[in-house]
Amino acid sequence: MQAKSEVAAAELSRDEIAENVRRLFSPAADARAWENEERLNAVIQNFLRTTKINTPVTLDELAASFTSSVIPDGPGEVGEYLDYLVERVVAHSTHTSSPRFIGHMTSALPYFVRPLSKLLVAMNQNVVKVETAKALSPYERQAVAMLHRFVYDRPADFYEQHVQESESTLGMLVSGGTLANISALWCARNSSLRAKGEFAGVAVDGLPAALEAYGCRGAAVIGSSLMHYSIDKAADLLGTGTRGLIKVPTDGRGRIELSALREAMSDCRERRRHIIAIVGVAGTTESGAIDPLERMADIAQDAGVHFHVDAAWGGPLLFSRRHRRKLAGIERADSVTIDGHKQLYLPMGTGVALMRDPHATAAIEKHARYIVRAGSSDLGRRSLEGSRPGMALFLHAALNIIGARGYEMLIDESLRKTLYMADAVRARPEFQLLQEPEMNILSYRYVPGPWRERAERGRLSDEDNRAINRFNEELQKAQRQSGYSFVSRTTLDYTPQGGGLPVTVLRAVIANPLTTEEDIDSVLDDQLMIAANLPAEVGG
Amino acid sequence: MQAKSEVAAAELSRDEIAENVRRLFSPAADARAWENEERLNAVIQNFLRTTKINTPVTLDELAASFTSSVIPDGPGEVGEYLDYLVERVVAHSTHTSSPRFIGHMTSALPYFVRPLSKLLVAMNQNVVKVETAKALSPYERQAVAMLHRFVYDRPADFYEQHVQESESTLGMLVSGGTLANISALWCARNSSLRAKGEFAGVAVDGLPAALEAYGCRGAAVIGSSLMHYSIDKAADLLGTGTRGLIKVPTDGRGRIELSALREAMSDCRERRRHIIAIVGVAGTTESGAIDPLERMADIAQDAGVHFHVDAAWGGPLLFSRRHRRKLAGIERADSVTIDGHKQLYLPMGTGVALMRDPHATAAIEKHARYIVRAGSSDLGRRSLEGSRPGMALFLHAALNIIGARGYEMLIDESLRKTLYMADAVRARPEFQLLQEPEMNILSYRYVPGPWRERAERGRLSDEDNRAINRFNEELQKAQRQSGYSFVSRTTLDYTPQGGGLPVTVLRAVIANPLTTEEDIDSVLDDQLMIAANLPAEVGG
Repeated sequence: MQAKSEVAAAELSRDEIAENVRRLFSPAADARAWENEERLNAVIQNFLRTTKINTPVTLDELAASFTSSVIPDGPGEVGEYLDYLVERVVAHSTHTSSPRFIGHMTSALPYFVRPLSKLLVAMNQNVVKVETAKALSPYERQAVAMLHRFVYDRPADFYEQHVQESESTLGMLVSGGTLANISALWCARNSSLRAKGEFAGVAVDGLPAALEAYGCRGAAVIGSSLMHYSIDKAADLLGTGTRGLIKVPTDGRGRIELSALREAMSDCRERRRHIIAIVGVAGTTESGAIDPLERMADIAQDAGVHFHVDAAWGGPLLFSRRHRRKLAGIERADSVTIDGHKQLYLPMGTGVALMRDPHATAAIEKHARYIVRAGSSDLGRRSLEGSRPGMALFLHAALNIIGARGYEMLIDESLRKTLYMADAVRARPEFQLLQEPEMNILSYRYVPGPWRERAERGRLSDEDNRAINRFNEELQKAQRQSGYSFVSRTTLDYTPQGGGLPVTVLRAVIANPLTTEEDIDSVLDDQLMIAANLPAEVGG
Repeated sequence: MQAKSEVAAAELSRDEIAENVRRLFSPAADARAWENEERLNAVIQNFLRTTKINTPVTLDELAASFTSSVIPDGPGEVGEYLDYLVERVVAHSTHTSSPRFIGHMTSALPYFVRPLSKLLVAMNQNVVKVETAKALSPYERQAVAMLHRFVYDRPADFYEQHVQESESTLGMLVSGGTLANISALWCARNSSLRAKGEFAGVAVDGLPAALEAYGCRGAAVIGSSLMHYSIDKAADLLGTGTRGLIKVPTDGRGRIELSALREAMSDCRERRRHIIAIVGVAGTTESGAIDPLERMADIAQDAGVHFHVDAAWGGPLLFSRRHRRKLAGIERADSVTIDGHKQLYLPMGTGVALMRDPHATAAIEKHARYIVRAGSSDLGRRSLEGSRPGMALFLHAALNIIGARGYEMLIDESLRKTLYMADAVRARPEFQLLQEPEMNILSYRYVPGPWRERAERGRLSDEDNRAINRFNEELQKAQRQSGYSFVSRTTLDYTPQGGGLPVTVLRAVIANPLTTEEDIDSVLDDQLMIAANLPAEVGG
């Protein structure tokens, strides 16, 4: 690509360059543009129908084809770039929507997001301000209000009052769950260390001055050891440091130990550490475990501490009349993270931080003279990001088209299929189920022949477990490399089977509506086949 | 929309819901899906060709049509939702690509980003980890390396070594300039307050402990009063508070006063305030002013302080052989922000923080057990965001297709047209040019008849200026409401014409390749016409 463009450009005059560039920006698509578009449509259709997950190319081989770092002179031909793109990039991209790719939180998406993405880019609204997003601004507010009501279910007149009130913020639409968690904890820190007396608040005077003003020796965020690593980022960013992040142990199923939480809190009080927030997890990334939210809400309320729930994965469980009780108490959280690109089936890049109190985000408000002026309806006044795209298009469309009953069906089916997979794991003596699934993430491992009997009797030594860990790591890598099916792997240190040792587990995430019971059997049978060809003693 | 869906859903059985949802997720687009897509294509073509900027609907009227907050039961018909979307949202969206919309940093985009957006969403790669972005990971690294080389131009073997080396990070692709600035300053804070002795570093022990370990009484970021408001967000987030953000004055053209910068720095040293970074602006949002980067680099180097350049707007000036000297010194910055969705003409949602030292981001590295494991090639190891979309597709495609010469043409043309507009403003006695443009942002104002003579003689009183300010505010609002053309407004407090008083200015941003000289004349003539119908004395 690059070499060719350089040659081509050397021959172009200034006028030809101008003409070629102008053609790229023309609002009227010409015949060649349509041809390129038609071609991409075919590429997309082909990509979506492919169930094989990966080509066998290695990462090193791939990397070797992306090493040049000079921007070509150009302008080049769009068609020529598409040739390159299809051959080098699309061909070796991961088929995240394959029904046998059940290892990460990606899935097939509803088809309407594809044409909508073109509309989104064509309109290219900038939601930071009304002047560049006239209709999108109130439209985004509505979509966020729908999610707020879905989680908090406050009275109808609450929503009538706040949905389009520019001084209210029911939630912040951000690029993902990480920013949602950071935004919520940013609000929590700033609200809890607000101005008093001479002290102008942590947002103005900073964290060291805040601790002095409040007579504290440190600041902390408390949650279980299974909090998402974005909370580590938040603690680092917000100035408490990761040592300010207190991770308390979980029970054998990955749920926070309430007694340990209470202890950590009273320890903070004794040592005069200010508690910024306690964090409940509604669906750990490792295994889908859900913290006891109702009890945590009680504890937070008693202590007068901000309660944040990271429901990036699990939030949409609320759609299910059968399963929603698992999240009981979430409606008492001060802030809730939900990821659109997980179980709302939206394209990558959509997170939401919902705020119970519509004025809580005043604690992070910022202004500028050219935009986001005080009193304006600009959504950028209270947000971590500045300029940002109209991702609300996907969210609003999906909430309206899939609807509450459609989402309920998706959630119920995912959980049903996960139980199917748990049974399928149990039915194969080579596997060991490590945890009864609470949601749609399944943790299990392969136990090679030599250890199977001891595993059944619960008599594995640490050395045995280490050998089994190595085996499962190799098994997961070999399956990934084969390209026919995929589960991910993680490490759990709380499962009884590990006897205190971290256990390497195979981790299945069942969320793709295209995944059938047959696919699940297939993924497991692939693993049996691959395992049969691996030596029982790996590395070590 | 909502009411209808609810009725429809009540009649659907569980099986019908399942069938309707399954159809949405089917990889094979059916006839109805193609029909909907064709229809959106027509909507997009129509939107792109419309030069009128807004419909006359008011914000309140618009808001009133987005007030319901209940998620409909659904599933609803895609076609029905599109009817709604076109009528309520697309019709009232801002035509940011109109050649007469020259007030904000949005523009027409090259056509290929539209079909690519569909591919991006269809592949739905998650760039946080290689397992969900096999080809996209090295591909993104290459695009970022191209920008790094473009700015820093280090020796070829430097790029050979680092472009695909997983322990190196040449830059972080983020959702926008705000996150790029925050990411860069996060690295600067963490690197400058690193572990020493008992102290484990600010990332672990937090900011209060860091100041103690380093024997400092506070921490500061220093730049001009025209720094973007994202730097305020960074100071708040990072725990220094906005009082830790020292804004030094500028000269009459908006460039930082070097003597004031030096003074602020020695004041920090005297008061034992740790300097996290000094920030140079390469293209202020207000007026495109460029700080003297070479001199700032000298100062930063002498003081051993991180030098960050916010070139979100101005960075692509480097493509222009004629104008690139204006950014001389940028290659000495420790970190540089460039926005893809500004003068690289990419869709909203693409910022880059380039790092001179490929290991600087080690200061913010985080791990998790399921992904971004130490030693992996996962791009999520060193990044503020977690899951994120393959926006590199747009960046890589544009760098290759538009190319260095194409971008040069775009930049040169924008600057040429800005000079044309400056002349056009001067040629109309009703206007006052407030600043010779350094880039492609123009600041001017309308001076109503009663004050024109005094303005020409430079004899306006504060009261005169206040009245003129009010007039220009009304003029800008009236033009925006008319919907035929658009410039934005801001407030400049450093222009000589204001005599120390903040001046409300009309602000034109000339970046759209579709904008012609005729369009520029038209925008100005619209203003003359609107102004002629406004009373000279507004409000006040």
